[in-house]
Amino acid sequence: MVGIRELFEDQASPAGRIVRAIAAIGSATATQLVKSTGLARSTVSTLLTELKDGGIVLDMDTKSNGFGRPSQLLSLNPAAGRCAGVLLGLGEIRIAICDLAHTVLSDIWFAMDKDYTPQDAARCVRSSLEEQCALLGVDMSELLGVGLAISAPVSYDGEILNGSILPTWCGTNIAAVFSEQLGCPIHVENESHCGALAEMTWGAAVGEPNFVLFKFDLGIGGAIVIDGTVQRGAHGYAAEFGHMSLDPRGPPCRCGNRGCLETFAGGFQLLRYAEQSFGETISIEQFVERARNGEAAYARLVDDAAEMAGWGMGIAFTILNPPLFIIAGKLAEVGESFINGLERSFARHSVAPPAHSPEKRKPRFVVGTFRGNDDTVMGAVALVLRQHGRITSEVSPAS
Amino acid sequence: MVGIRELFEDQASPAGRIVRAIAAIGSATATQLVKSTGLARSTVSTLLTELKDGGIVLDMDTKSNGFGRPSQLLSLNPAAGRCAGVLLGLGEIRIAICDLAHTVLSDIWFAMDKDYTPQDAARCVRSSLEEQCALLGVDMSELLGVGLAISAPVSYDGEILNGSILPTWCGTNIAAVFSEQLGCPIHVENESHCGALAEMTWGAAVGEPNFVLFKFDLGIGGAIVIDGTVQRGAHGYAAEFGHMSLDPRGPPCRCGNRGCLETFAGGFQLLRYAEQSFGETISIEQFVERARNGEAAYARLVDDAAEMAGWGMGIAFTILNPPLFIIAGKLAEVGESFINGLERSFARHSVAPPAHSPEKRKPRFVVGTFRGNDDTVMGAVALVLRQHGRITSEVSPAS
Repeated sequence: MVGIRELFEDQASPAGRIVRAIAAIGSATATQLVKSTGLARSTVSTLLTELKDGGIVLDMDTKSNGFGRPSQLLSLNPAAGRCAGVLLGLGEIRIAICDLAHTVLSDIWFAMDKDYTPQDAARCVRSSLEEQCALLGVDMSELLGVGLAISAPVSYDGEILNGSILPTWCGTNIAAVFSEQLGCPIHVENESHCGALAEMTWGAAVGEPNFVLFKFDLGIGGAIVIDGTVQRGAHGYAAEFGHMSLDPRGPPCRCGNRGCLETFAGGFQLLRYAEQSFGETISIEQFVERARNGEAAYARLVDDAAEMAGWGMGIAFTILNPPLFIIAGKLAEVGESFINGLERSFARHSVAPPAHSPEKRKPRFVVGTFRGNDDTVMGAVALVLRQHGRITSEVSPAS
Repeated sequence: MVGIRELFEDQASPAGRIVRAIAAIGSATATQLVKSTGLARSTVSTLLTELKDGGIVLDMDTKSNGFGRPSQLLSLNPAAGRCAGVLLGLGEIRIAICDLAHTVLSDIWFAMDKDYTPQDAARCVRSSLEEQCALLGVDMSELLGVGLAISAPVSYDGEILNGSILPTWCGTNIAAVFSEQLGCPIHVENESHCGALAEMTWGAAVGEPNFVLFKFDLGIGGAIVIDGTVQRGAHGYAAEFGHMSLDPRGPPCRCGNRGCLETFAGGFQLLRYAEQSFGETISIEQFVERARNGEAAYARLVDDAAEMAGWGMGIAFTILNPPLFIIAGKLAEVGESFINGLERSFARHSVAPPAHSPEKRKPRFVVGTFRGNDDTVMGAVALVLRQHGRITSEVSPAS
């Protein structure tokens, strides 16, 4: 029996496919594995026996579906390997370590200078990981991988394409910087793509192979998931919903265009309105709190943002026709007034099914499960669990 | 050895995968088949011997890549089966019959009343197919399938979702109507999706697994191709680029929204401008001719359409990040002035790669290969060759 690392990274071998399928969803029945791997039941059965003998797969509780014999739930042996997820944020870094059964073993946070460099980040992450691993009694070399969540599009080879909250990082190959320090496989992705992976693994999108996520936060990002895969596009720019240009004569945007959705409905912009119009310098959390409490001025800003957001989602629907939208980010925490406004606007701005069409042809709107930046750091862990965004020395197919 | 029909329709069996892979591209080397099916070389080799013995696969010419031994090109036995493609157009129907080696055996066209019904269409198509098959010495029951191209979104079970150039057809299950008459497998898809399949099979997208097609014709449609699959979305509405609402206070659109791309850059709209502003009632072909010849009034209308079209493509790029755009439809026949205007506008309205970014990160723009409605009828044939849009009695995964 080969080791967990080889199995985990082997996209082709049947045993690898089983290990990866369990890693993606945390625990699974043999029937679920037959379905998700496409392998024959007998193959799955034989390989599961081998994987259990090798100490890689464990029997867990049984799962009853209400009739017949309850099914055996299987998980990966938590001790077989660990993954780390790193959020590189504005003046802060957060690191979570998980085992292969999806249990969070440690979750720490530390402040950084506002203008910290990628090299600073990599050094701090290494020393923090060493510390955390030591506390957990794990050798750092046992990490199956480290996932990095970046608030900007990232190329397949790990280059930060556009600067977002860390504009000076644009053009940096962040994977190379971290590889040098960490000596284990590095996975890198845009934070909204990480958010989608977190929702697929633990949140509102478990069992949903097709959906579109909009993240309304200080910026606006998103993810497109088709057949269980987070789409990256040719170079990593896919799902940059915040930069759909809705009004070419609108306000200038940091991306170089005008009238991008973010210039109307992004959190930074809403805070700027609050400052310019009401003379109040507040945080996004305070903004959300005031809008939730129905303070008229803030409620109106949220209403107007929802109008623009619904228009943008209408365009995304007309292009992608997803069955499900997941609404994430701090603005979603405003609650019903934002979501209802958004759905109302969406209905006016998307290709409408004909009048006789059944209700089921309309997309569902679901608020994401995570709060704060939990989706980002857990999504960074999920990069490793789902082997997404892995940087290899090979040239990417699209570059 | 099972028959061609079973092989053709069997998505799972290795021999079926080989047959389908050859059908999709017309002719292939064993090496290409190993790559496209993911089967082991030895499996491909064994199965090809069986398929040749069964008279299903034939050796064709050899193909030299300039060094080493030339490779043997394989095709399906043309006599093993035929496919038909049907374009249901405005006051016209066109039908093509192809063999499995991608040779067009017949291509006929006939006029219909402007308000012909789906039942009229099915009856006329049957009698015309019977006639053509008789001329070719083929029994109609030998047809492996009939593909229907509809100028509207179509659900997975064959229902016309929105009326387009045949508005009264909205809500009709066109697959059921044709099944009754034809007694062979029916495939149905939106005409722009068919156009993409034609470009993938014979045209500008051969060997391109990822691209976005915009079709600028009387209406505006399109297709999104990811990993070689034309995306349909949850219910068949994917890639309705003509109905992106670019200006919610803009002109009303037949889809129920305002300011859709089609209301600015659709051919019907351009002809309406010509009529209203210049008092000239002309056809789209005449319009294109005048713009090509540089008649100022028409050239300006094309310029303005290109400006709006480039904006719409910029939004599509920001969402999908394709490596390649294919520009199809009659407006593309205007030539450079339209394409250049469109690319110029695109550059101002899409997420821009950072200044240091290599040229390769920009999408390529390629004009489609087909003229007139050739893409639509050939795409309808390709529906069968590529087993796309097949209507089964099973419930679709997304409905």
